[in-house]
Amino acid sequence: MSDSASHRGLAAQRRAATHAADPEALAEQIHTAASTGEDRIGAWEVLDRDAIVEQAGRLMTRPNWQDLPLAGVAVGVKDIFDTSDFVTAYGSPIYAGNRPAADAAAVAALRAAGAILPGKTVTTEFAYWKAGKTRNPRNPDHSPGGSSAGSAAAVSAGMVPLAIGSQTAASTIRPAAYCGIVGFKPSLHRISLAGVKGLAGSMDTAGCFARDVADVASLASVLAGRPDWRDPAGPGGPAPSLHLAITPEWDMAAPWMRDALDSIAASLAALGAPITRAPAPAAFIPLAQVQTRLMAAEAARDLATEARFHRHSLSEPLQELISTGQAMPPEQQEADYTARDSALAQLDALFAGADILLAPSALDEAPRFETGTGSPDLSRAWTLLGLPSITLPAGLGPNGLPMGLQLAARPGRDRALLQAARWIEAHLAPDRRHAVA
Amino acid sequence: MSDSASHRGLAAQRRAATHAADPEALAEQIHTAASTGEDRIGAWEVLDRDAIVEQAGRLMTRPNWQDLPLAGVAVGVKDIFDTSDFVTAYGSPIYAGNRPAADAAAVAALRAAGAILPGKTVTTEFAYWKAGKTRNPRNPDHSPGGSSAGSAAAVSAGMVPLAIGSQTAASTIRPAAYCGIVGFKPSLHRISLAGVKGLAGSMDTAGCFARDVADVASLASVLAGRPDWRDPAGPGGPAPSLHLAITPEWDMAAPWMRDALDSIAASLAALGAPITRAPAPAAFIPLAQVQTRLMAAEAARDLATEARFHRHSLSEPLQELISTGQAMPPEQQEADYTARDSALAQLDALFAGADILLAPSALDEAPRFETGTGSPDLSRAWTLLGLPSITLPAGLGPNGLPMGLQLAARPGRDRALLQAARWIEAHLAPDRRHAVA
Repeated sequence: MSDSASHRGLAAQRRAATHAADPEALAEQIHTAASTGEDRIGAWEVLDRDAIVEQAGRLMTRPNWQDLPLAGVAVGVKDIFDTSDFVTAYGSPIYAGNRPAADAAAVAALRAAGAILPGKTVTTEFAYWKAGKTRNPRNPDHSPGGSSAGSAAAVSAGMVPLAIGSQTAASTIRPAAYCGIVGFKPSLHRISLAGVKGLAGSMDTAGCFARDVADVASLASVLAGRPDWRDPAGPGGPAPSLHLAITPEWDMAAPWMRDALDSIAASLAALGAPITRAPAPAAFIPLAQVQTRLMAAEAARDLATEARFHRHSLSEPLQELISTGQAMPPEQQEADYTARDSALAQLDALFAGADILLAPSALDEAPRFETGTGSPDLSRAWTLLGLPSITLPAGLGPNGLPMGLQLAARPGRDRALLQAARWIEAHLAPDRRHAVA
Repeated sequence: MSDSASHRGLAAQRRAATHAADPEALAEQIHTAASTGEDRIGAWEVLDRDAIVEQAGRLMTRPNWQDLPLAGVAVGVKDIFDTSDFVTAYGSPIYAGNRPAADAAAVAALRAAGAILPGKTVTTEFAYWKAGKTRNPRNPDHSPGGSSAGSAAAVSAGMVPLAIGSQTAASTIRPAAYCGIVGFKPSLHRISLAGVKGLAGSMDTAGCFARDVADVASLASVLAGRPDWRDPAGPGGPAPSLHLAITPEWDMAAPWMRDALDSIAASLAALGAPITRAPAPAAFIPLAQVQTRLMAAEAARDLATEARFHRHSLSEPLQELISTGQAMPPEQQEADYTARDSALAQLDALFAGADILLAPSALDEAPRFETGTGSPDLSRAWTLLGLPSITLPAGLGPNGLPMGLQLAARPGRDRALLQAARWIEAHLAPDRRHAVA
């Protein structure tokens, strides 16, 4: 599905939208797509036909609205982003019925670009652990991953061509990989988190979902105000230089996953992408643990209001996270921030002369629904460091569920990352490429 | 005023509060202090006696409430922190009457520690430039600085012993210095900004105001959940090693300010604090400009909702900031983030073997009220780098208004910074020390 002109991609939806006769017709297109399969998948926390009609009406009064980059395109928005026209409950009963005074900044950027929100997508509780109702569109017996479950599932199922979410550990990369789509987490602070319910301030990052790299780049470009991110060079561009930095988490991946990555690496090398492999430098070995501890310490601070006034309305895993964070010794916290900073100062050693790091996106295929949202371990370190990262569909696992290929670049090299992803997407063997149904 | 048992300090207020006969009596203490001089100073956006009574009543039902670290102590809260019981307007008519669903996390931490909020303190518009009504308590013809104007003025005037604010460029250090009190900006992410209206996500930091270092340390300790920050070693502790890193901004400071700093440095050296001086390394020279540009770029993203839906309700300076940010070329932004990261990798060279950097807190005394809130230039670079910093009252300028001494440490060395500040506070010549009236 590397062709953004796919009938479910951005360009096709934009074309259909700009040819809609009136707001009712546009709303009908969007609502029909967004609700198809919803009873099976449960991607939406709120899905509101009237709100779609109203947005479509407002859009069509704007002069030259058809020229907007997301003209009439439906975008799923994770229910941790404030919206002035939809209840925003952050996946928690504490905020049932909550009506924010204003849109999150990223939502305003979407509306400015002509996008229409069909509703809000399901998030785990405060973007942490406790799953909502969403099922994996590729197999409803399995989890879509977390925490941006609804956004990933809605794109995977073709309900919307684009969606946004967030990542503190692996909450964009993992669900995108499990659902067989593209997920992109840019460098820190390029997409605003103003008006987004946070979990751990130093790591929280907005995330983008789409069916291919070109579409995810268009969405991120709008959100970050970065025209240079759009239209990453296609298959004709230069081959990226790749490096496999082996970490303890890597060794925890399922054997079939490691074999698949080896095989992908070999085929990319044969196609002209220079690829090296080495154990990650010592400074990077403990970072998944560092991320786990700092996330707890920061969550205890960032969720202080809920912990103080609504403790018994929090799930047990979240209560535990907060308790762990509150009990984290100060010396441990400072040692962990120092470990992060020291690793950042040694990034050149991690990249070993290459531009792009390569890894699996998750340890295995999506787990069964009732067992949770899966492990974030393969993204923790990169998220802690603020590396821009992306996952591409890269084939199927032994149960026929998607596997993702995870790429990362140095902070600020988002454009290079998107170009590398576009090149790899175009050069993946056809049997690996078409992960999206 | 290095004695926290001062009648206007934390310990005295806590003692008086815990001896109050009933909620009415406690509320009377707090309201009387908070309203004394208000007609002259204008520190409060909202000041609500009924809300004080209600909070005092709730506090006194808590078991052993007298043992809480801020038991019954009044804390001023800048009106960019969400509060569930006070209107929160972010200094903008756009949010007039806004009632947040929940407290900011830092506010919840204050309440958990037994603090009482008399109301909300005046902020400049969205913590940027446009001043509110607040006057400098040391001379109402002059500005209190910005953006945390009300919080600094309220502490300086003895209305409250403690207050909180924020800093993106110099919004804690500058008003504290202008008002003759202590202002402390910790390392990034140690105090939560959840529920705080942001201006530029990568730089926004919470700030603390008090009349001396011990009190500011107690406040920050509660907010960050860091018992190790409390009770920094007093005059008997080890002398800090100090360094003056000369920058272009330093040369812009008024001649009297530079002379005063030289004289303070000489006296501290004579008292046993080793002190060195050198031009800042080349990587640090452009950082004030880098901060200025990145603040514009990030503000354009973080205030996207207001820019899109309420542009004409924004002040002209803020509209200009957002326009500048929206027009910032992508290459410039990435070059600026890279310049910051590269400077962070060279921090050892900036500190030149010392533990603590020394600088003036502002270019001059507080300007006259009608000319604006003064220049943030002397804090821009340190804020960009996320260095914890603190300002101490260090004497008076030619117009009889306070000057501040600004100290900074490496990220994460907040405790060492508080100890150094406590040592310097105790060793400043008596004629410099008693800046607070």
